[in-house]
Amino acid sequence: MSDIREYLKKRKEEVDRYIEIYLPEEGEGPSLLRKAMRYSLLAGGKRIRPILAITTYEAIKGENKKNEEIMPVAVSLEYIHTFTLIHDDLPALDNDDLRRGKPTNHKVFGEAMAILAGDALFIESFNLLLKSTLNSENLVKIMQVLSHEIGISGVIGGQVVDIEAEKERTCDEDRVKFIHERKTASFIRASIEIGAVAGGADEKTLKLLKEAGTKIGLAFQIVDDILDETSTPEELGKTPGKDRMSGKCTWVKVYGLKRAREDAERLKNEAVDLLNLIPHTEILKGIAEFIVKRTY
Amino acid sequence: MSDIREYLKKRKEEVDRYIEIYLPEEGEGPSLLRKAMRYSLLAGGKRIRPILAITTYEAIKGENKKNEEIMPVAVSLEYIHTFTLIHDDLPALDNDDLRRGKPTNHKVFGEAMAILAGDALFIESFNLLLKSTLNSENLVKIMQVLSHEIGISGVIGGQVVDIEAEKERTCDEDRVKFIHERKTASFIRASIEIGAVAGGADEKTLKLLKEAGTKIGLAFQIVDDILDETSTPEELGKTPGKDRMSGKCTWVKVYGLKRAREDAERLKNEAVDLLNLIPHTEILKGIAEFIVKRTY
Repeated sequence: MSDIREYLKKRKEEVDRYIEIYLPEEGEGPSLLRKAMRYSLLAGGKRIRPILAITTYEAIKGENKKNEEIMPVAVSLEYIHTFTLIHDDLPALDNDDLRRGKPTNHKVFGEAMAILAGDALFIESFNLLLKSTLNSENLVKIMQVLSHEIGISGVIGGQVVDIEAEKERTCDEDRVKFIHERKTASFIRASIEIGAVAGGADEKTLKLLKEAGTKIGLAFQIVDDILDETSTPEELGKTPGKDRMSGKCTWVKVYGLKRAREDAERLKNEAVDLLNLIPHTEILKGIAEFIVKRTY
Repeated sequence: MSDIREYLKKRKEEVDRYIEIYLPEEGEGPSLLRKAMRYSLLAGGKRIRPILAITTYEAIKGENKKNEEIMPVAVSLEYIHTFTLIHDDLPALDNDDLRRGKPTNHKVFGEAMAILAGDALFIESFNLLLKSTLNSENLVKIMQVLSHEIGISGVIGGQVVDIEAEKERTCDEDRVKFIHERKTASFIRASIEIGAVAGGADEKTLKLLKEAGTKIGLAFQIVDDILDETSTPEELGKTPGKDRMSGKCTWVKVYGLKRAREDAERLKNEAVDLLNLIPHTEILKGIAEFIVKRTY
């Protein structure tokens, strides 16, 4: 575990360096918009999605890896993730004041700017992704995966059902699986799938990685649900217990803490079994372990 | 003019038919989200952006035109346009209750759903665009144009400066040109440029069309500013005079009605002069005429 923590730390620093290159303080567009985008983008975060894409790409590409192929694609995933967080935190949605230990975007820049900064991050993610030196066929495939997994059948669809479940106080096994698979697992799976496409994976490998990705993604969200119940505010970067208080439909709510822990562990093991069928996936397996064991 | 009105009417009906095909009532994703997306998408509108893309594509492609190449691309522009309108109307931004004669999205579905419906339309626009049978090279080029012209240097950047100008009550010749070129002209130019790329235009033609597109786009927004002062609520589909009351930075505010009319006419003439250098652009010229003469 200490090795993988070290790996994740180094990779996070690398992603952060590239964010500074791709969206520096000075550049095109209104400076206040740029400031609002950078504020949330640089407010911390584990960079799990870009790192999954990079790690998967490198597992497949081996010695022939090129930063100019994968980094614009990987960092664009963090732009998109940040866009969903900014909009999620808005007063009309989750109404969160704190994110990663800092005031949320709308608390600092106001609601109008937070909405537009989210929109801008999303649009600029495509701008950035298209700067990759991958060939057009692969870029199109990646965009197809991304727009499908983020769209109405993926992240945004999951967010809508999440809000509905919270409002209607309807939460059961089917509902929580539906929300978690879409809101979180689709994006985690997409990050791995996109890395695989960028690396030129064959059909069989791609299928295995997608299956493993779904399980890792689901485990990731279950652990998020657990941490919301068990973490300290310092570890979490926001007030713990907020899911329960706001009536969110979580794995812990449906199955309790003990079963949630068992499910996360089981899903991780199933993912590792799948990854064992693919060479050079040691680090990916390590990340899966980390995701289940993390305390933040 | 009656010919071009007939043409625009027929083409609008065609675009509307394709929207029904691409986003039918029943399909993937939460039904309420789909309903909110369809509500604004089908609430009317001239469909100027898709029509400009289709018309430009056909001018270049001639007999070899294929609906399966251009329609997904053209309709995706209306998804994006609708996304910007839904977010623009939100209480935190323009706070509009009425759009195209109907209650705005957040008035019907609430703010949370309006934010997510806007996000979803934007994401699904890429999903749709990528269904085009154009080759990958052209799809990548089109997405590059789009994400650049909608991003921080284009539409979203323009929206931010628009809000700043309204709040700070700063409005002069430079400011209004900056806002209008980004908020409106970039998208109109992009629609023409995208049609041209889809049709396989050569570099010289592309350059001329982009120049003409900027002028048509600027004329379009100037006429919008004029109509906000001079239209009836029935023609406009919303309360006239709102720009002035809310302190918006408009062409009419800076130059007055008479000069605004002259500028729109002049820009249109300059665009027509450019289009005269390209064969088969009669309909495009007709649309430019319509844009300046329209009363809605």
